[in-house]
Amino acid sequence: MSDETAAATSHRRPSGRDAKRAARSARAAASVAYITRKIPEFEVLGTEGLEILEHNADTILEEIGVDVRDDPESLQLYRDGGADVQGERVRFPRGMCREIVQRSAPREFVQHARNPARNVLIGGKNTVFAPAYGSPFIRSLDEGRRYGTIEDFHNFVKLTYMANSLHHSGGTICEPVDLPVNKRHFDMVYSHIKHSDKPFMGSVTHPDRALDTIEMAKILFGPDYLDPATGRPKTIVISLINANSPLTWDATMLGALKHYARANQATIVTPFILSGAMSPVTIGGTVAQTLAEALSGMALAQLVNPGAPVVMGSFASSISMQSGAPSFGTPEPALVLYVMAALARRLGVPFRSGGGLCGSKIPDAQAAFESANTLLPTCLAGVNFVLHTAGWLEGGLAMGYEKFMMDVDQAGMMHTLLAGVDMSENGQALSAIREVGPGKHFLGCAHTQANFESAFYRSPLADNNSFEQWEAEGGKDMAQRANAQWKKQLAEYVAPPLDPAVDEALLDFMKRRKDSFPDSNVG
Amino acid sequence: MSDETAAATSHRRPSGRDAKRAARSARAAASVAYITRKIPEFEVLGTEGLEILEHNADTILEEIGVDVRDDPESLQLYRDGGADVQGERVRFPRGMCREIVQRSAPREFVQHARNPARNVLIGGKNTVFAPAYGSPFIRSLDEGRRYGTIEDFHNFVKLTYMANSLHHSGGTICEPVDLPVNKRHFDMVYSHIKHSDKPFMGSVTHPDRALDTIEMAKILFGPDYLDPATGRPKTIVISLINANSPLTWDATMLGALKHYARANQATIVTPFILSGAMSPVTIGGTVAQTLAEALSGMALAQLVNPGAPVVMGSFASSISMQSGAPSFGTPEPALVLYVMAALARRLGVPFRSGGGLCGSKIPDAQAAFESANTLLPTCLAGVNFVLHTAGWLEGGLAMGYEKFMMDVDQAGMMHTLLAGVDMSENGQALSAIREVGPGKHFLGCAHTQANFESAFYRSPLADNNSFEQWEAEGGKDMAQRANAQWKKQLAEYVAPPLDPAVDEALLDFMKRRKDSFPDSNVG
Repeated sequence: MSDETAAATSHRRPSGRDAKRAARSARAAASVAYITRKIPEFEVLGTEGLEILEHNADTILEEIGVDVRDDPESLQLYRDGGADVQGERVRFPRGMCREIVQRSAPREFVQHARNPARNVLIGGKNTVFAPAYGSPFIRSLDEGRRYGTIEDFHNFVKLTYMANSLHHSGGTICEPVDLPVNKRHFDMVYSHIKHSDKPFMGSVTHPDRALDTIEMAKILFGPDYLDPATGRPKTIVISLINANSPLTWDATMLGALKHYARANQATIVTPFILSGAMSPVTIGGTVAQTLAEALSGMALAQLVNPGAPVVMGSFASSISMQSGAPSFGTPEPALVLYVMAALARRLGVPFRSGGGLCGSKIPDAQAAFESANTLLPTCLAGVNFVLHTAGWLEGGLAMGYEKFMMDVDQAGMMHTLLAGVDMSENGQALSAIREVGPGKHFLGCAHTQANFESAFYRSPLADNNSFEQWEAEGGKDMAQRANAQWKKQLAEYVAPPLDPAVDEALLDFMKRRKDSFPDSNVG
Repeated sequence: MSDETAAATSHRRPSGRDAKRAARSARAAASVAYITRKIPEFEVLGTEGLEILEHNADTILEEIGVDVRDDPESLQLYRDGGADVQGERVRFPRGMCREIVQRSAPREFVQHARNPARNVLIGGKNTVFAPAYGSPFIRSLDEGRRYGTIEDFHNFVKLTYMANSLHHSGGTICEPVDLPVNKRHFDMVYSHIKHSDKPFMGSVTHPDRALDTIEMAKILFGPDYLDPATGRPKTIVISLINANSPLTWDATMLGALKHYARANQATIVTPFILSGAMSPVTIGGTVAQTLAEALSGMALAQLVNPGAPVVMGSFASSISMQSGAPSFGTPEPALVLYVMAALARRLGVPFRSGGGLCGSKIPDAQAAFESANTLLPTCLAGVNFVLHTAGWLEGGLAMGYEKFMMDVDQAGMMHTLLAGVDMSENGQALSAIREVGPGKHFLGCAHTQANFESAFYRSPLADNNSFEQWEAEGGKDMAQRANAQWKKQLAEYVAPPLDPAVDEALLDFMKRRKDSFPDSNVG
């Protein structure tokens, strides 16, 4: 046994009081509306490289252009903005999209929550964590894999509400497959409003559903919907607008984007790219294409309503060249992420990417390696809005209860990491070193006692006990501990208060709208 | 299902030929003697902060000093070098240790392997991966946890030899508890020499064992032991010298350090610190103390033999304030690591830290999260010598067969990450985007075909197949796949050729030395 392992043998059993104190401390530490980073962003390319990639994006927009499918209004908006429109192909004079975006898109903006203490500032040095989005399946240790339901959806909204390290309620946390496709957006938006007071995302699966979302936000905020300072609507909803990469937009996504932009609601304009399928297999090619696509989408939002909040998104992973399956947590997407974040800063818009992505079907070591290898770059790169922070499994096909709790823990750690180094006198701690001196230990010294509560991030899921104690407690793995934790959380859930009149108005609106057209599951 | 998950449903089954090609490609990609990074180092503190911490380290060395236990020779060396020695307490005039180190310690150096193609360049932009070190226990899925044996030791030397992402054979990969404590160093050094041709580490558990290690290196290299260019011995062995933090050195470690330094063999001078026990609970306090301790140890090596290769080491983690147990993969140690790496660059010596550290007892999600949260900072910070890259479990108390294979995979990924962004014309891939255009896919395009073999890092352990295929293949987790992999590797192991005369001379030396004193297990 080396010196480096000998120390690991000395443990003492925690008392119940210690555990309670730790829980209090962990809660206090993470209870912020969003993170404001105090460490620099990590960049992997210098200015020269970034300029080349920007030039390439402009080349793509100028020479190749983007296709806009089935959406004459958007084509006209682009034409009026100065683009060359031939049929459905839109080509942009070099620099046009960048100028439009830089002219009016805010560098950062507030997304309002119904509880103002939960408002998030998106952009700049800030990072906002939201849960995963879009899974049709659910996974838990108890039930394995099955289709998601509205009850699962409620559960995840509740768990997200209770997670101090998640700042945002997210959107389609899982697909409630038990509800009709053309009406489930009502129930999802209502669940976010009812079971949480954190900011949330809107529907994008049909332009009308964007309007429904906006209507529900208006009901929720009532007279506070308009910002008295600007006379414009407050930004209450943020929504995910995916491109059909390569270089294609469809009327569904652009229809939603335009509705949201007109209402001053935020959109995350995100090329969804699996390199090798939707973009070239190289980082440089993927980045230039992503930037071109995002620029064209963000420019449309600004053409519709200058000043409407937009976030530049990048969802980039790669495919297995063996099987064609998407892979996650590999080095190439991390490099794309670092470069895209730097490009967003140069452009001057908030950036969305990353999360706790993985390809693993279960919350095992693969899931954890891949998720950590995505979340850490996400945070070091300086991502402002992190969708898919918690719960993601199987390339997004499954939302995992245990994985969710693990990711919440990891997101908590990121709060401490991004807080950086405390260089105060207390942080420098020379007094402690003077007090203790050579050959003694710091466990009981005054400085340690004074900093005991806040000293280190405390994981509620990691087991750091001795082997013997861990074994005596059943030799559980992290997934088993997470299983107990999410059930305990759900049992302890208490809903945030909601004005009964608002609640009634929302339910009434939903009923009227739902009754006005027949159920459908075709889209 | 959102656009971001829909794509995950499209898979095709890999053919055997695809799999073989992928395996070839993965091997070729990682087959380098060491990594030379092409991305910047990440730093979390600016110059002002780093200067304060350097000032604090000097204050510690000047005001408090270090204790040197039972080692009059080292006390005399420090006194002759200009230190103030009172009893066993050594205080250093401000800047003394730094000046001594900067005067003669090499910024980088070659550690020679018996196969010159395996020589590693330690320092500068280079990163060298070595396996974990010092575990008394072994863990595998088949046997659970038990004490390690020399057969396990041989196994891990073989697996390390076969792992293209590990550049270095390491040292006490596990403790061969079945051999006498006072003689097992012979068998460990011999195993590294016999079963691998990668560079290795020497014994530090007694000064005489350092001499035995040096003697075996001399036998191995024969007339090539001396470097004809310098007339000095080649650096063939690197060894881990731990301080007894806080601020204490003992005669065992310093005895080994002096023997190695006199023979021009490299030492890694490493304060082993669990913050809260061996240092203050803060990052700033831990860093200043680590720097002070490392400076005093490296200075001794330079006083003994100016120019002897030294590496500044930092092993820093924290303890659970609930239980006193060490914890790993938390944010605070990562911050210490980033700062220490920056300080090593300012000092101008190679740096050792990090690895695949975790507190988990088993290769589960906890192990993976913690290991990734250590290895990624290790690589981004710019660590030059990475001990504990592979196999580490349970705070270093156990060496895991499955964990080892997982970590080897992760180390492989780091090769791709540190290679950065290819900004060649092929890397920019505008031709591919021009070829494919909007709405098509890149799977068959000329650029994809030309880059197919090297496109993405291919994990041999991640399962990216469809849920259905994964389930049909037994629904295995990563640990189960790793279990099959290490057994297959060991079955395929072929020893690198070793000159029979050298082999005989080594065995003869070991027999003579072992016969010259009785077995002992007391230390």
